[in-house]
Order: sequence, then structure tokens, then C-alpha cells
Amino acid sequence: MAIGSFHPPVRTLMGPGPSDVNPRILEAMSRPTIGHLDPAFVTMMEESKELLKYAFQTENKLTMPVSAPGSAGMEMCFVNLVEPGEKVVVCQNGVFGMRMKENVERCGATAIMIEEDWGKPVDPARLEATLAEHPDANLVAFVHAETSTGAISDAKTLVSIAHQHNCLTIVDAVTSLAGSELKVDEWEIDAIYSGSQKCISCAPGISPVSFSERAIHKITNRKTKVQSWFLDLNLVMGYWGSDGQRSYHHTAPVNSLYGFHEALVILQEEGLENSWARHQYNHNALKAGVEAMGLSFFVDEAYRLPQLNAVTIPEGIDEAAVRSTLLNSYNLEIGAGLGPMAGKIWRIGLMGFASTETNVLNCLGALDAVLSDMGADIQSSKAVSAAKAAYAA
Amino acid sequence: MAIGSFHPPVRTLMGPGPSDVNPRILEAMSRPTIGHLDPAFVTMMEESKELLKYAFQTENKLTMPVSAPGSAGMEMCFVNLVEPGEKVVVCQNGVFGMRMKENVERCGATAIMIEEDWGKPVDPARLEATLAEHPDANLVAFVHAETSTGAISDAKTLVSIAHQHNCLTIVDAVTSLAGSELKVDEWEIDAIYSGSQKCISCAPGISPVSFSERAIHKITNRKTKVQSWFLDLNLVMGYWGSDGQRSYHHTAPVNSLYGFHEALVILQEEGLENSWARHQYNHNALKAGVEAMGLSFFVDEAYRLPQLNAVTIPEGIDEAAVRSTLLNSYNLEIGAGLGPMAGKIWRIGLMGFASTETNVLNCLGALDAVLSDMGADIQSSKAVSAAKAAYAA
Repeated sequence: MAIGSFHPPVRTLMGPGPSDVNPRILEAMSRPTIGHLDPAFVTMMEESKELLKYAFQTENKLTMPVSAPGSAGMEMCFVNLVEPGEKVVVCQNGVFGMRMKENVERCGATAIMIEEDWGKPVDPARLEATLAEHPDANLVAFVHAETSTGAISDAKTLVSIAHQHNCLTIVDAVTSLAGSELKVDEWEIDAIYSGSQKCISCAPGISPVSFSERAIHKITNRKTKVQSWFLDLNLVMGYWGSDGQRSYHHTAPVNSLYGFHEALVILQEEGLENSWARHQYNHNALKAGVEAMGLSFFVDEAYRLPQLNAVTIPEGIDEAAVRSTLLNSYNLEIGAGLGPMAGKIWRIGLMGFASTETNVLNCLGALDAVLSDMGADIQSSKAVSAAKAAYAA
Repeated sequence: MAIGSFHPPVRTLMGPGPSDVNPRILEAMSRPTIGHLDPAFVTMMEESKELLKYAFQTENKLTMPVSAPGSAGMEMCFVNLVEPGEKVVVCQNGVFGMRMKENVERCGATAIMIEEDWGKPVDPARLEATLAEHPDANLVAFVHAETSTGAISDAKTLVSIAHQHNCLTIVDAVTSLAGSELKVDEWEIDAIYSGSQKCISCAPGISPVSFSERAIHKITNRKTKVQSWFLDLNLVMGYWGSDGQRSYHHTAPVNSLYGFHEALVILQEEGLENSWARHQYNHNALKAGVEAMGLSFFVDEAYRLPQLNAVTIPEGIDEAAVRSTLLNSYNLEIGAGLGPMAGKIWRIGLMGFASTETNVLNCLGALDAVLSDMGADIQSSKAVSAAKAAYAA
């Protein structure tokens, strides 16, 4: 046997996540572990909740990090808010809407699907029509920022339509939190989940969530037990609750939560609006470079996410070879397409700590060089200067 | 607002977990994050699986870390192996057996409870009788090492009885892994879960699991879908599977898994049997000290865990005040009793990196001083020298 310590290569992470982690966060995770019921840890939990309320723009008391990845945050929303026999309208415009459907069905409920073309936002008119057709629907679920395509939907409008039809809402904000405008209270979102590894640039493994009073009312008045013990908010609230009492539920991932706290401190220092603006600013330069190269974006500018750039792959190019060369020669990770998008797009992330001028210029330079070497039909040697010009403008 | 970085106090963790984390593991978690599908990360995953097979003493192909705490590892075992309408015999001798019952019922199955006195091991004769009475039972679940009391049960015998009655087995090894003899293949355990934060001394948040071929056969032949998407092994196997192909399921907690890998490298360096022996060696010295003080153990020596020491609280002592003083003046964490054990016992952990002579001597010295100051009816100033004598013997 004799397996030694693992020393990862130093990459630049410009895929769909994890994004580059700020060294301050890496250092925070290496601080000495303390007990999950230690008064000092409880203080840190309270601070994390406050910081997270700011990031989500909410006063929701039930705002906290789930001790598991975003998929578990999604599942927490569904298993707590959906009861067997209910009807849930799921708006699907990418991979993560499909996963919502899976969640609904595993809760013993029926998913009424609104399927949009991938790369398009959810159409409010279709939601309106679907809810009119299904007056007994209980809940509407959709993805704010689709990580599989890079399209943003109008969360505020969709939530408002759902409420007019007496439906609660579950919103996937995995890729939008801290990268795009997101206002949980103003938009009256009922349940929201995100991930630690996107625009707040923390290590993966934590899922921030928030629940409105309307959602809590539904959860505390369920007719059936939540099917998951680990994710049952009636139990989790006893640990993360705001009454000062901490009852043991599970052992929190202490060091991961140090990192999460630090990520939110950094976000607070920058300011949420500044973070949104920075994501847009670097996207604009990347866009100038990508277009100067003669490549195009999969998603229309009107609903394109600045932090997740789906770039169409030039004709006749072995896209996996491009990614391998970027990884092996430049230590640069960009993402492949997921599901039906495989082979059609690359996903270039400009998320959190990775959303910098340095990364935009290096990525464009590397992509330009690799594609030129492979004889791709692009405008060579234009990308970097176009991005520089965009920054200078 | 303006919340600053969190700098934890430096504690010595001698509670029921998390245990002290080796600085090598803390450093490993601070290494640069890479993508969860990066070839370098995949290599590390394969190494972790090999190292974990060694720790569990198994050749089970489906042996891996779950991306969430031990409670999620428990839930993964139940939701995958239990179908609605089935019967599960749950042997309960502490808090975690109760949690198993919750899991069974949330799977839509019936839990047949064997309730033992807390602090006692599970009685094989009662399991035999219960299975004879319920020939239609599908599964037997029990806790190998009860963290709430510090009692160990005879896993080998219990599994053998279950198999004679055509039942699969789920074993909770949260506190036993690396601390007490545990042989998954030799004992023919079907499904087992543990935690990262006990005797392998990693940060909390990861749950190692292993499933036998018999278990996999049941999982792949289920009549119903697994109720949890996040924990569905049919999906998770696609990511952690051994066929070299990695299909995206969820984003793995990359840095936590660096720490987990390092913890297993350290275990491999020490040797599993040496780790078991070290836990016993330090327990013997702690025991000499505790008994010299005039205190007693809650669990009989015959089935007492060396890594989790339930010590009875002397008459008339405010046990919470003792723990507070230990924490505030000595930066030493010991555990309270859980549930019905609250106020009756302290739980002193000697787990993993915390199982050292230094910790035994310091803990005894501190406890002796604090109890003497509070006027407890103990033999003062005897504990440390008794422990030293035990080490010298």
C-alpha cells in the first residue's frame, strides 16, 4: 500500500464551480477545530447567520448553512415543503430543473413540468397559464441562475405569479448568490438554497439556505413527518435556531464552517452590490475577448449570467482536447457542457475570487493560443487586446 | 454589522467528538482547491477508497466517504437498504439506536425494537429470540460502539445471528472505526457507516461508508426509488464508482476530502492494530487515575470502550460548572451525558490524535483540581500519579 500525502496541483478554477478559493478562506479552514457546541463556536454560528442574511438580503430567522453540498440544500427545501400527494410546478430550463423533478417525485408528489429550451429563461406567461390550469398546485420551483446554461430567470416576477396563485416558492440560487442581484425579502422568496463553491468562493460542501415565515408555517404544520431525518428542519432548527439553546442534532462540519464564515466576511468587506458589479465588469471584458476571437455566447445577452459564460465550441474542434491542454499546460480549468449541452458549449466561470482581470486576460490568451494551434477557425491574437480595451473603456 | 474573521480558541478536545485534529490534517485542508472532476482529484479519490478499505478491513468495492456528517451516512444506509413495508430489527442501547428507529420509520418500514439498558451491550440471545419471533424481518441494525454510553457490542456475533435469519445488517461504527477492533469482511457486515471526527481525528463533516455485494444486490434490485436523491447509491456510485468513469452527481467537498485522505494516510502509517492498542493503552492509564480519584465508570469493564469513557459524576456536584471551568480555565472540552444520561455521566473521549499520555495526565490533573476546589467527595491528588504508575507498568 503506502499511499502518501496528497498535494494538489495549483489550478486556476474557471469552470462552473468550485471557483478559486481565496487563500484567506483556505487558511481559515486550517484553524484549530473546536467542539460544535463550544460557546465560541455558537458565537461564530450566530455571526454566520447574520452575514448570510446580508448576502441573501433577508431578515428570515431561519437562514443558515446546511452541513452538506448544494444538492442537499435543494433536497432540504423539497422534503420539508412538499408532502405526499401535493402538486409542484417545476420550471425547467436546464439540468437543475430536472433534478428538482426528481426531488418532487421522491417526496411522493406530482411534478407539473414547464419545459423551456435550454439557454432560455423561464417564461412568466407560461407559469401564469400553468397555474391557471392547475389551481390545486401547492408550490412553484425554479432555478434563478442555471449553471448548466448560464441563463438567468426573472425570480421576482415568477415568485409574484406563484403567490397570486397561493403557491409557495423554492428558488435555486446556487450560482446567483453574490454574483447577480438577489433579494430574498423584496422578492418574497419562500425557500432558497445556494452553494458555497460558486460566487462566494468558499470550498465546496456547504449549502446556505433561507426560509420565510410562510415556509416555516407550512413546515411546522405538516401532516406527515419529513422523510429525511438529517434534513428535517423541525430538528435542525433546534441546533441552528435563534433561541440561544442548542440541542444536539448532528456534528457540524466545524472547519468547513470556519471557511464559510470567512467567505461571508470577505463578501461583507467588498459589499454585495460591488460584488455583483465586479462580476458584470469582468464578464464584459471576457465577452469582448470571446467575440473578438469570433466565438459566440450560447445565451442571449438579455438574460446572460456574467459569472457563468456558455461559449459555443468552434466547428470541428475536439473540445475535450482543448480542456485537457488548458488544464495540463496552463493549469486552467474551464467546464464542459452538461447533458444535452455536452460537446456544444464550454462553461467559463468568472465566479467570486476567480472573477478578476488577471483571470480574464490569462484565460483569453490561453484559449486563443490553444485554438490557434489546433487550427480552429477563429480570429487569432485579437482576444486579449479586445478585453484590455474593454477594461480601459 | 462589521463582523471580523473568526479565530477559535485552542482547545484540547476530549469530549465525544470532534476529537483533536492532527495539524497535518488541518494543513491538508488548506491546500489549494481543485475541481471535483480534475484527474488529480480522481486519483486522490481512488487512494482514499483504498485507504478506507484498509481502515474498515474490507475489500468491498463500494467503500467511500459520504459528503456529509455521520448522520447522513446513517441515513444513506437506511434509505438505500430499507423499502416501504419492510421490517427492521433495531437493537437500541443508547441515543443512536433511537435515531435508527426514526430512520426506519421515515422509510415507511416497521421498526421492531430490542431495548437494552443504556450502558449495556446488545444481547445476542435477545436478537436470536426476536428474529425467531419475526421470521419476516429483512434487516438488523445496531450500534457497534455507543457514543452516548461508551459500551461496545459484539458485532461479529450479532451479524452472524442476523445472517442465520436471512437478514442484512447495518452497523453504526461512528466511534469504533480505528479505535476498537473492527473487521468488516471477516464479520460479514453488509452496510457500515462511521464519522470523520472520532478515532481517525479528521475534522467533522465526512461519513465513511462501505457496502457488501449482498447490500449492493439489494440496492440495485429495489422495487421503489430511494427516497433521497442526494443519498441514492445508484447515483452516487456513478461518481465514486470504480469503473474509471466519473459522472457528475454533486460537487464533492474537495478540501474536507483532502483532510480525510491525510487522516487515513496517518492511520496507515501508524497501523490499524497499533491504533487500536494505543486507544486501549491510554484508556488503562485514564482508568487508573479515575479510580484512584474514587470515581467510577458507568460501563462494566468487559464491554467498555477505551475511546469513550463514561465517568459517573460525584454526588452533589454541579456537573455543568465543572465542564465550564475545564473549558474556560484549561481550554479542555469533556462531554456531558446525552438524553437520559444528562447529569449522570461525563463523557471523556480519548479518540485518535487526542488519545495521548499528555492528554490523560492533563485531564486527570485538571479534573482533580476542579473537583477538589468544589469540595467534591473524591480522593484528591491521587489521579495523576496513579496514571503515571499505569504507564510505567
